[in-house]
Amino acid sequence: PNKKRIITDTFNFPSDLYILQGIKQNLGNQHEIIRIGASDNDITPNIAELESAMNENTALVTLSHVVFKSGYIYDMQRITELAHKKGALVLWDLSHSVGSVPIELDKCNADFAIGCTYKYLNGGPGAPGFLYVNKKIQNKLSSPIWGWWGQKNPFDFGLDYEPADGAQRFLVGTQPMISLLTMEAGLEPTLQAGMDAIREKSILMTDYAVYLTENVLAKYGFTLGSPTDSSQRGSHISIRHEDGYRINRALIEEMNVIPDFRAPDNIRLGFAPLYISFAEVWEGFDRIRQVMEEKRFEKYPKQKLLVT
Amino acid sequence: PNKKRIITDTFNFPSDLYILQGIKQNLGNQHEIIRIGASDNDITPNIAELESAMNENTALVTLSHVVFKSGYIYDMQRITELAHKKGALVLWDLSHSVGSVPIELDKCNADFAIGCTYKYLNGGPGAPGFLYVNKKIQNKLSSPIWGWWGQKNPFDFGLDYEPADGAQRFLVGTQPMISLLTMEAGLEPTLQAGMDAIREKSILMTDYAVYLTENVLAKYGFTLGSPTDSSQRGSHISIRHEDGYRINRALIEEMNVIPDFRAPDNIRLGFAPLYISFAEVWEGFDRIRQVMEEKRFEKYPKQKLLVT
Repeated sequence: PNKKRIITDTFNFPSDLYILQGIKQNLGNQHEIIRIGASDNDITPNIAELESAMNENTALVTLSHVVFKSGYIYDMQRITELAHKKGALVLWDLSHSVGSVPIELDKCNADFAIGCTYKYLNGGPGAPGFLYVNKKIQNKLSSPIWGWWGQKNPFDFGLDYEPADGAQRFLVGTQPMISLLTMEAGLEPTLQAGMDAIREKSILMTDYAVYLTENVLAKYGFTLGSPTDSSQRGSHISIRHEDGYRINRALIEEMNVIPDFRAPDNIRLGFAPLYISFAEVWEGFDRIRQVMEEKRFEKYPKQKLLVT
Repeated sequence: PNKKRIITDTFNFPSDLYILQGIKQNLGNQHEIIRIGASDNDITPNIAELESAMNENTALVTLSHVVFKSGYIYDMQRITELAHKKGALVLWDLSHSVGSVPIELDKCNADFAIGCTYKYLNGGPGAPGFLYVNKKIQNKLSSPIWGWWGQKNPFDFGLDYEPADGAQRFLVGTQPMISLLTMEAGLEPTLQAGMDAIREKSILMTDYAVYLTENVLAKYGFTLGSPTDSSQRGSHISIRHEDGYRINRALIEEMNVIPDFRAPDNIRLGFAPLYISFAEVWEGFDRIRQVMEEKRFEKYPKQKLLVT
């Protein structure tokens, strides 16, 4: 509580940074938020810089396990150990890794993790998020939002808040029942396939995508915006092009390929191993080739639409 | 921001109080939370006490428009005016009134309102909540939780938070799409019927329920836990009995009547005008009479179950 340094990076999802900024302001601007940058062209975070930023005044290190633009994957075990040596807690955002990369929070002794279920866990837009708090610290903490489902005896309707034991104290309001029920169907295929099989196929797919980027798309000016080593990579890659925004629009509007564009020049391609085939990966890259060959992107304005 | 007094009452929904307590602690326990009590046997809040508690140091007055146990309905216009005279802001919890009582937030010049859609708006458990912020103050405020949907340009993925203009700045994360879509069906019957017709039937139903309480149930020891004047009452009433908890269990487990029990002695009966008939009101009260006549409640323990 007396430590005032919070360490994150420029690769973290912006809303993770916004939350930190909001908390900092609510607590009277006493904290310092440090954002570690890249060691190369926005692909790999600077781990040495991260390590040297961790000092005895560090309260929290918070990072995206797999980062949203480049798909770089942090070594959770190593970073958590480094932070713990300085007495800092660690919070991992699993949004871009859960369901595509095996994760062992307990084994890594992580303190906190959060994430969404609407990417690789098939929950769809606005599906429920999740929170992990290490058993060792659950009862030392309380949620900043004291809701009735985190109350020890919610149906006593007592006027004073008393937190429940264990993870339940982090609940807030009534759970969204319809969304939770649809998650059963969303999670089932992942449980059936198993994380090891999913990761194995995911690596083969992103390796194939890297191969196609270098051997089919490079001649049109594309570069890889992701690590080449699959052990440092989640289940998506970015391909970069100075006309990336317009190429992305042509893909969506003419080619039935729906990537995300992420500024300044990333076209982000996600590979969900459960339901995407290798033939579809080839087909997708061939459509990008077509857009370039036929210069289909040139008719779109450089001015961005509101939703990308 | 320099005012430190928050006024609420013991009738407010407990989780509203918990949220206030959590905020108070997060902000370093500088605020004073005052809870106004009842002027009678837990049916009517003490309005004189409420009025005299409002002083120049009052930041916020926050109340449930219709209170959850007794169904008492505050005069929104009058209380809002009183608070504004002292320079305080007013937040109304509409959970027990929206969809059953006409509400004119703009006309009353209310500052904030919140509420749930899972009662009279048919959203079901965990359906989306809502927030109202008066247009005059929207841009002077920001949410304590800085999420990406409250960001001015969420798809720019900028690293620094800048709040959107207007009410959009109070959004947080991605909206729960499935739950929002089901709300269309939930809201449609209310829009078709119109609030005036709903309120008219609601008053007739609660009047009838009060009549049955006094003429059928009184001889078994029941008293009315709600105002007798329908203009001071929402769309539910409480009937009180010292064996209320056990009577409630007998109704649920044997009679297919599902009220809520609210300690210490309230059996809360809700009347949703859209789909409950007068014949069903009579039938419900007759089943309560049966439970008493046949002493069916006596076989249940006084020890409470976890969910009531």
